[in-house]
Amino acid sequence: MSNTDGQKIYDIAGEIFPICRSLSGRGVRETFDILKKYADITVTEVPTGTEVFDWTVPREWEINDAYIENEAGEKIIDFKKCNLHVMGYSAPVDEWVDLDELLTHVYTEPGQPEAIPYITSYYKERYGFCMSENTKNSLKPGKYHMYIDSRLFEGSLSYGEIVIPGESEEEILFTTYVCHPSMANNECSGPATAVYIADYIKRLPKRKYTYRFVFNPETIGSITYISRNLEHLKSHVKAAFNLSCVGDNLDYSIVHSKYGNTFADKALTNILTYHDKFSDYSFLERGSDERQYNAPGVDIPMVTFCRSKFTKFPEYHTSLDNMDFVSPEGFQGTFDVLRKLVNALENNGYYKVNVLCEPQLGKRGLYPSVSRKGQYDTVMMLTSFIAYSDGRNDLFDISNITHIPTEELIEIKDKLVANGLIDINDCAW
Amino acid sequence: MSNTDGQKIYDIAGEIFPICRSLSGRGVRETFDILKKYADITVTEVPTGTEVFDWTVPREWEINDAYIENEAGEKIIDFKKCNLHVMGYSAPVDEWVDLDELLTHVYTEPGQPEAIPYITSYYKERYGFCMSENTKNSLKPGKYHMYIDSRLFEGSLSYGEIVIPGESEEEILFTTYVCHPSMANNECSGPATAVYIADYIKRLPKRKYTYRFVFNPETIGSITYISRNLEHLKSHVKAAFNLSCVGDNLDYSIVHSKYGNTFADKALTNILTYHDKFSDYSFLERGSDERQYNAPGVDIPMVTFCRSKFTKFPEYHTSLDNMDFVSPEGFQGTFDVLRKLVNALENNGYYKVNVLCEPQLGKRGLYPSVSRKGQYDTVMMLTSFIAYSDGRNDLFDISNITHIPTEELIEIKDKLVANGLIDINDCAW
Amino acid sequence: MSNTDGQKIYDIAGEIFPICRSLSGRGVRETFDILKKYADITVTEVPTGTEVFDWTVPREWEINDAYIENEAGEKIIDFKKCNLHVMGYSAPVDEWVDLDELLTHVYTEPGQPEAIPYITSYYKERYGFCMSENTKNSLKPGKYHMYIDSRLFEGSLSYGEIVIPGESEEEILFTTYVCHPSMANNECSGPATAVYIADYIKRLPKRKYTYRFVFNPETIGSITYISRNLEHLKSHVKAAFNLSCVGDNLDYSIVHSKYGNTFADKALTNILTYHDKFSDYSFLERGSDERQYNAPGVDIPMVTFCRSKFTKFPEYHTSLDNMDFVSPEGFQGTFDVLRKLVNALENNGYYKVNVLCEPQLGKRGLYPSVSRKGQYDTVMMLTSFIAYSDGRNDLFDISNITHIPTEELIEIKDKLVANGLIDINDCAW
Repeated sequence: MSNTDGQKIYDIAGEIFPICRSLSGRGVRETFDILKKYADITVTEVPTGTEVFDWTVPREWEINDAYIENEAGEKIIDFKKCNLHVMGYSAPVDEWVDLDELLTHVYTEPGQPEAIPYITSYYKERYGFCMSENTKNSLKPGKYHMYIDSRLFEGSLSYGEIVIPGESEEEILFTTYVCHPSMANNECSGPATAVYIADYIKRLPKRKYTYRFVFNPETIGSITYISRNLEHLKSHVKAAFNLSCVGDNLDYSIVHSKYGNTFADKALTNILTYHDKFSDYSFLERGSDERQYNAPGVDIPMVTFCRSKFTKFPEYHTSLDNMDFVSPEGFQGTFDVLRKLVNALENNGYYKVNVLCEPQLGKRGLYPSVSRKGQYDTVMMLTSFIAYSDGRNDLFDISNITHIPTEELIEIKDKLVANGLIDINDCAW
Repeated sequence: MSNTDGQKIYDIAGEIFPICRSLSGRGVRETFDILKKYADITVTEVPTGTEVFDWTVPREWEINDAYIENEAGEKIIDFKKCNLHVMGYSAPVDEWVDLDELLTHVYTEPGQPEAIPYITSYYKERYGFCMSENTKNSLKPGKYHMYIDSRLFEGSLSYGEIVIPGESEEEILFTTYVCHPSMANNECSGPATAVYIADYIKRLPKRKYTYRFVFNPETIGSITYISRNLEHLKSHVKAAFNLSCVGDNLDYSIVHSKYGNTFADKALTNILTYHDKFSDYSFLERGSDERQYNAPGVDIPMVTFCRSKFTKFPEYHTSLDNMDFVSPEGFQGTFDVLRKLVNALENNGYYKVNVLCEPQLGKRGLYPSVSRKGQYDTVMMLTSFIAYSDGRNDLFDISNITHIPTEELIEIKDKLVANGLIDINDCAW
Repeated sequence: MSNTDGQKIYDIAGEIFPICRSLSGRGVRETFDILKKYADITVTEVPTGTEVFDWTVPREWEINDAYIENEAGEKIIDFKKCNLHVMGYSAPVDEWVDLDELLTHVYTEPGQPEAIPYITSYYKERYGFCMSENTKNSLKPGKYHMYIDSRLFEGSLSYGEIVIPGESEEEILFTTYVCHPSMANNECSGPATAVYIADYIKRLPKRKYTYRFVFNPETIGSITYISRNLEHLKSHVKAAFNLSCVGDNLDYSIVHSKYGNTFADKALTNILTYHDKFSDYSFLERGSDERQYNAPGVDIPMVTFCRSKFTKFPEYHTSLDNMDFVSPEGFQGTFDVLRKLVNALENNGYYKVNVLCEPQLGKRGLYPSVSRKGQYDTVMMLTSFIAYSDGRNDLFDISNITHIPTEELIEIKDKLVANGLIDINDCAW
């Protein structure tokens, strides 16, 4: 199995990995500048203070440098070496303090003593430093210089969009995040995959659906996006897929919509069922953009697709989620799933056979002319497709009923269309 | 865990235990006189001969004394020591007979040689004596004096009612029995629990529902009650719970309604699910008042609640079902379930969040201001409640979906109401 | 358990076993001549070339003799000894060839070296011989005489019908095959059973439903039949049962309709559930006439009943499927299932108890007058029937809910009718 596509996505993720992103600010814009090399992203800026439903767009955060220095002038931790060392949205500080006071501003993950945790304080102004438990334990009494060169100011929040038109105005929506600093799976993997799959879709000879990709900061970003586009989304989106943690090679996961019963649930569950083993999470284990899109009154049919689901791998939200944790193989698996998904969506329809009783397949070269024991598999797949082509089932339904993967059903469908045996409709007959 | 309430119910059960009750007669009325000390019971008398649906109210039975005496003048069995010794509704007799003839009127439970069985013959006039298999085996040939001082006469059947009004005329109905002689679980436990919980409900600062408690003889009594109140019941009862065998400490049980799909099934099943292990019986294992209330054309949404279900414990319908078989702990468990049930019913509603996307919990002090790994449980419970507050789910639905007990959901609901985040409706939006 | 009926069906199967049947021709007509001794079969001839939906009725096939002869004049295989030796619908041949060329026309079943396989080539003109793998391996180099005295000509396809009128014009349809040569289970068993059960039904004192039996060649025959009777079938058939492989004693099987949700599925599944263990096959494992009757736009509620399902027993489509493979015991099991099925269909209805609350069974002699522990089974069955006689359930529904076989429910129903306690309707109230 070639990992050509997976390697390319891995490389894009690697390009954006070093940047210090947060809810807003320079890092987000630098990330968009890189991603624009791969797809036509339109960036929108929403000013600080804008009301978005129950929320307000926060001040923009700018960070230039941060460290803790000891009396010997040695930097204990240095933002320039790892941007997780500073708590996200930290206020500025420039102060010498005793160890005891220093520790009131230090965050570690005691259960993973080598890992630097990812910590934020978006909505209450404070400052803080993150380090490994080991580093913390090595600190000796004495004076320490806490230094953060940051500022919070009236700026704007940025989100990006790609729209690839299709024959229909109905949309397939993909969303992902641009607010996480240097963590590879969560979340350099999502944006890297999104621009790559957008490019793949753009190159398709034709498209039935319009495809929309949205890149935003998590929570406040998606709320902002939804607040500005709710009516359009509600009237156009047929299925929505949130991409998060799609670069590791340990699992495949779906996090279902609120009731697990939307077209997006049906489509992705089916694809994963015939792709590989996967973990099936209910909405109770949500934690990503599906929270906002599934909110009462929003009700966009969104599921989240992950390789290993956020919070389920120990590297999650620590410095261990680095470019070694993700892999070309991991991204290749993600690409394969999304390629199959798009292929199934593009070929989807409600089928209706146009002859009564089974058609005579033999005269069309679709049936072996000598009838004997044990040769029925191909024929059974064909006649099963026909039997359930009664206008009530779409491609995913037929796959679920017959246990035949959509990719094989599409081949059968194309044969039946070529022989003029079935008619296709966009909705149930 | 305190058993304060359980002890009080146990004591009430102990007060009514000694009385010889049957379908009708003095014992039933004496029982009501005791129960009236704890709750305002209105007793109704229905005359012998009254037609009630397919049945006729039988003659009233009065029993003063009964025994079997041997030639030495020793009483082999004595009604005054245990009222199970005489078959319920026995006709009078006063006759010396040989052992052989005596035995044609004697009932035992051979599989439980120490137990006196509970036997009745309501609708065919006969007389009989019940004793342990051991006593029967000890009888020597000789003459025996069969003596029953009873009479069957044109009297009346008694049933009792408590009505506790609430804001709404919709009713929650509880039923139980007053026709069993000295057996503790079946059925001193039901009436004792009913008057105690009625008093508990009466003391609530406010009530959404009206609560009705009905105490009647089994089968003919409930048929009589239904025949006189059918239209009222059909138009007012939202959920009905029959209480039987609620004093032991061995199990919790629900006997479902005919199709197991009423609001009463949903409510009690949910409460039991988050209370303790319990046995789930279908209507095929019915045997109590749920038979009449679920009959075609009656169709009151009734389930039966038991600790150990009738017929499932060996002491059932024998002298072994005594005050040692029930316990303060057993009654406390029953009280806890009913208290949770009433609390959930009173707080029930269909909830609808009134902001789009997730509300900003942080600005209301409902969200930790530092965001880090592993702290999400409380927040997830809150946001789960909100996510399913889409106007389609009531308290029990949300509990079933989120696996959060109603008691905890009620605390969340109160917080959300206090913050003006949800609206509440009595039915789905 | 008597096998009287099973023996009689076995004997009929034995009578038609020797005949060489195919899609059309003399063998089919000889078979009808024998079957007519047992039931009034009307035979219809449909000319070669008639268009039937997507198909065309093929030429008729006549075969008189066939063999392979070696240079010594010995017949290696001889059609007169076993008609499976010639491929069905073989064109004529009369030619001496080398062993190598001979083998290009020889079919065996290598996995079953002693078995002669059953092979056909209906829709492409060719000729061929079938033999055991052992026979093939014994052939030495040399000249062989391939001889088939057959002809394909403009004739007709034959199908047979029995119609037994009932009170209603609603029909119960049974179908089976007359196109298989000398194989016992598949398919002398189906026609033999069909005529026997038709005779059984005809002798019933009265019939609620009209019963129709159709005997046709598989696929083209059923397509022909449906094409000429579609409107009648769609407007009259309440349930349809295809009979195939009903003579062995190894299993019971149902092959469900397309969605497994028709009245025929409900009826036969219920009967099998309370008859014996059985195999439950979805429509994905179809392979018989249920394919045509369940086709989109045809939509006749048909299931297939088998003992061992076609393709599931190794003797299938070989010379090992002979009169030793089927048995009187096997046919008796089939007869018992069909008898119970017909009995249930004839007694089926939607029941409604006409008193409120439980009826007083005691005054009608339906309840023991002394009430004591452990005696409730019969009463529970009776009151369960009554409890679910609410106008919503038919006989099969009540059986499925209460787990009481239809045969016992019919006895209860008759008692309730005799006591005037229930009303019966043909559809839900």
